[in-house]
Amino acid sequence: MNEDMKFTSLEEIKAAHKRIQPFIHRTPIMKSEAINQIAGCEIFFKCENFQKVGAFKARGAANAVAKLTEEQKKNGVATHSSGNHAAALARAATVAGIKSYIVMPSNAPEIKKKAVKGYGGEIIECEPNLIARETTLQEVVSRTGATFIPPYDYMDVIEGQATCALEMWEEGIEFDAIMAPVGGGGLLGGTALTTKYISPKTKVIGCEPAGADDAFRSFYSRKLIPMEGPKTIADGLLTSLGKTNFQIIMQYVDDILTVSDEEIIEAMRLIYERMKIVIEPSCSVPLAALLKHKKRFKAQKVGIILSGGNVDLGKLPF
Amino acid sequence: MNEDMKFTSLEEIKAAHKRIQPFIHRTPIMKSEAINQIAGCEIFFKCENFQKVGAFKARGAANAVAKLTEEQKKNGVATHSSGNHAAALARAATVAGIKSYIVMPSNAPEIKKKAVKGYGGEIIECEPNLIARETTLQEVVSRTGATFIPPYDYMDVIEGQATCALEMWEEGIEFDAIMAPVGGGGLLGGTALTTKYISPKTKVIGCEPAGADDAFRSFYSRKLIPMEGPKTIADGLLTSLGKTNFQIIMQYVDDILTVSDEEIIEAMRLIYERMKIVIEPSCSVPLAALLKHKKRFKAQKVGIILSGGNVDLGKLPF
Repeated sequence: MNEDMKFTSLEEIKAAHKRIQPFIHRTPIMKSEAINQIAGCEIFFKCENFQKVGAFKARGAANAVAKLTEEQKKNGVATHSSGNHAAALARAATVAGIKSYIVMPSNAPEIKKKAVKGYGGEIIECEPNLIARETTLQEVVSRTGATFIPPYDYMDVIEGQATCALEMWEEGIEFDAIMAPVGGGGLLGGTALTTKYISPKTKVIGCEPAGADDAFRSFYSRKLIPMEGPKTIADGLLTSLGKTNFQIIMQYVDDILTVSDEEIIEAMRLIYERMKIVIEPSCSVPLAALLKHKKRFKAQKVGIILSGGNVDLGKLPF
Repeated sequence: MNEDMKFTSLEEIKAAHKRIQPFIHRTPIMKSEAINQIAGCEIFFKCENFQKVGAFKARGAANAVAKLTEEQKKNGVATHSSGNHAAALARAATVAGIKSYIVMPSNAPEIKKKAVKGYGGEIIECEPNLIARETTLQEVVSRTGATFIPPYDYMDVIEGQATCALEMWEEGIEFDAIMAPVGGGGLLGGTALTTKYISPKTKVIGCEPAGADDAFRSFYSRKLIPMEGPKTIADGLLTSLGKTNFQIIMQYVDDILTVSDEEIIEAMRLIYERMKIVIEPSCSVPLAALLKHKKRFKAQKVGIILSGGNVDLGKLPF
């Protein structure tokens, strides 16, 4: 691990929050008596499904775009993303009056492609694998001079995602644990930084589908293991953990738990039926993990980040 | 029309709100920039899908139970209902420590039967028609001595439903129009009373599926026409308009609009996709009517009551 890596500070996260506030929603925290009874603890759901573009990714993208120099803004921004970061960057760019080029895998959900176009992004399709994504992105950047804003392995993006936990702490709740899903690690990394700066004793727990468990394996082997051939219904968590994200996670995250797709679907149904809100499958991974390890959280105050609500309604698993 | 009919007053509605406050949620009002752009006006969605038991019916049932005498409470309450009133009354009774007997049609959605049992109600099944419901109910009442709490044609219930609009007006918004779905007419009647007492110039508009348009036909023929063989996806609006409800509607409602099932599904999808909330089909009838008559509401402030969120997730129409 690179011991010299400088992570964003609490002051910088607070500054990022001020910077992006005009462009994002302060999302509500919801509670469900019925789910609390089932879980045996008190859960505070941070509803990033109600966030702009329907996902927490609006935070990181807004922060990264706002920190560009005037010179960089002239040529726009570019990225590759399976979905929510794509829409978030397209929107952040359009709001700032600059261009955005979005490399998307050809099998990305239709609703996410539609969103990117709706927010004014230019889509460049590629084969659905990491190498094709990176090659295509490189071509786009060479051609346009756009600045690459990575979906998660990028401190300005992590700093933006860290503002989500900041809002949770501003509610004055003394969380015993905060749980977030982990894919690339932007949300989990940001959540861990904010939380450990504010309350070192609070457990920060990453939650991952068993079918895309590279963060789990990396965490316990203490070396970054990329994900190959991920397979899970949680389409927002298919990506491999980023390098910076891994370093933050090794230093600030307490544990990573994995759950099966069946457990994810069960938790997802519970959220739809009991909370009457629309979430994407990735969101229900933390609740699934909590229900799998009820004893561990007994009578605690647990924060769960519901990361987004962009789901193909025609493909709900129930 | 019976000119002597005494409707509940604004003071009584306010007293009902105080009476039921410990037992219900004050539900949030949500807005969607995306839907406002499509509609060309400013819409305030009152989210009764987040209400206890997942529907506004919690209000009327709580009020009716709270107003029972100690003598009446001994034998419990009974009703017939295709769904939400059933769950609402079962819960209100259990919270008050009394018994409830619920006559339900055999084809009622599974999720609604499960809810009634979960809230402690005793279900008595009957054939899915009004005559069977009423006969079965009569038997239950004779056998148990329970007090019949009708789902909508009952002033204590209407008074409870009227508290929903009261909360909307307490937000300080100057609504040009308030729209609510109409089935039996409890919600629309209560909404009309509260609204016209507080702001006579605000239009109150009932919204109905074309496949169950008895309120529309009754309103324009000025006589109560019962619904026969209703057919619509909006399963909460299959019932015929009640007598008391009809009288309130003739006196206080400005118009009734009808929409096709296709229009209902389109509006429902818009709410799921853009607002990320779960609603039942009946809820999307007012938005469908607004989108069908955009010109009429141009640039206005419109309140829409989203009546409930109890939907069979396996049977979503998209």
